[in-house]
Amino acid sequence: MTWYTEQWSNECNFSIKYEKELHSEKSPFQQIDFYQGKEFGTFFTLDRLMMVNEKDEFIYHDMIVHPAFATNPNIKKVLIIGGGDGGTAREVLRYPSVEEVVMVEIDERVFRLCQEYLPVTAKGVEEDKRMELRFEDGLAYVKNAPDASFDLILVDSTDPISVGEGLFTTAFYQECYRVLNKDGILINQHESPYFAEYAENMRKARKKIKAIFPITNVYQYHMPTYPSGHWLFGFASKTFDPVKDIRVEDWKSFGLKTKYYNTDLHVGAFQLPSYVKEALETDE
Amino acid sequence: MTWYTEQWSNECNFSIKYEKELHSEKSPFQQIDFYQGKEFGTFFTLDRLMMVNEKDEFIYHDMIVHPAFATNPNIKKVLIIGGGDGGTAREVLRYPSVEEVVMVEIDERVFRLCQEYLPVTAKGVEEDKRMELRFEDGLAYVKNAPDASFDLILVDSTDPISVGEGLFTTAFYQECYRVLNKDGILINQHESPYFAEYAENMRKARKKIKAIFPITNVYQYHMPTYPSGHWLFGFASKTFDPVKDIRVEDWKSFGLKTKYYNTDLHVGAFQLPSYVKEALETDE
Repeated sequence: MTWYTEQWSNECNFSIKYEKELHSEKSPFQQIDFYQGKEFGTFFTLDRLMMVNEKDEFIYHDMIVHPAFATNPNIKKVLIIGGGDGGTAREVLRYPSVEEVVMVEIDERVFRLCQEYLPVTAKGVEEDKRMELRFEDGLAYVKNAPDASFDLILVDSTDPISVGEGLFTTAFYQECYRVLNKDGILINQHESPYFAEYAENMRKARKKIKAIFPITNVYQYHMPTYPSGHWLFGFASKTFDPVKDIRVEDWKSFGLKTKYYNTDLHVGAFQLPSYVKEALETDE
Repeated sequence: MTWYTEQWSNECNFSIKYEKELHSEKSPFQQIDFYQGKEFGTFFTLDRLMMVNEKDEFIYHDMIVHPAFATNPNIKKVLIIGGGDGGTAREVLRYPSVEEVVMVEIDERVFRLCQEYLPVTAKGVEEDKRMELRFEDGLAYVKNAPDASFDLILVDSTDPISVGEGLFTTAFYQECYRVLNKDGILINQHESPYFAEYAENMRKARKKIKAIFPITNVYQYHMPTYPSGHWLFGFASKTFDPVKDIRVEDWKSFGLKTKYYNTDLHVGAFQLPSYVKEALETDE
């Protein structure tokens, strides 16, 4: 038995016991490590940060995907930036109404290793006929994508360091705005309010997105293996308000069983603690 | 620099750096340790479990107190069981409309040490003329209390082990029901849904309370230094529904500034993830 330890802040650590290191490699983009333990099952880290584990991946993947579909059940064309483990694509592909999913992951090794070690998220994704898998830079992809070509963009990225950095820039958010159609929705990994370094990234992302989209919101969820367990997604949109415009009956008619998401929780998730709301409105 | 490490489950730990151990003693009831660090400030543990720290105590204390007052702004008589750090009493005493607060803490040493080392929660509590401080067993106290003598009971306890055990029993909840008046509300520390051992305690508490009170709910909040960061309180009541009957304007008219709680979050906190709802309805 050995321990994987992650620094959550300068003053605290989170550690997970594992039985076996399944794989370790340095790809052209990042350090990739796969481990296997009992409680959290198989998990992998990028540059020594927890990405996905079998115990709580359902939380993250439910929350990045379903709120957008309950706000606009007519989503047909979806762009996923990042998401190399496949879990976000897996959830999107559960909607039979979705016609086309482009997934742009910079590091093919992440996806290939998840196909091998983490079938719970990656299995079946490549085989789905609606999928277009591209292993290239997400920022470059959106720069070259045509105007108004997607209904939904899901930014399933790492923190704004290394390969994730470009996905937290004004240039990127502007391109997202352009390639979204008139009802378009952007969901982005929005970091966390509790530890200072993450909170700073949260504030910066918020400020940039708010300058571009007419409707912007942030929603929260309990993600125990991410620093502080208090994690956020951004919801930016051209027309739909995620709380006022939620289409509960339409979403329920999809008949999807979800372990974390439900339409009551959807509305609840947008109700943020006062200190988070204040931090998000700073610099305005 | 040394580390305080707490086992969150069989397979994972949370560790906090501290600069100084301020105090350590074995009281007649439990092991008490006070530490001082940078990020979390002063914190203390009971039987090696994190109780209170200066960084996130506002979250727990906002959430144990304010939802009840926003549901019934006419609360005048409050019973606190446990709560030795004083933080729950501190928040209750902010309401000028409160006339009487009885706090029954089994371990006087916890309160005295918090007066010395943790003034952020304990300062001023003993001095408030509305306070009656009793250092005795909470279960015995409620057994001897008259019928219908309180508007609100706040169970601010440890986990159901050692001194906290009696506060998770049917006998205790029945006495709470009896000593609450016709509009009475019971708020209790309700453990956590994520790690198996805590989830089991959560389910057991739920089942017992649901058999006694006509209106029962569970609400959640983000408490980063408790296991998984996903923590719950129970809301049980004789007449008021915490979501339908919330009195937003009445609560706002108290003019209290709160760092975590707000009335939108109040409603949101009762919207639970599907897996938590299912676990709470098990055994029915």
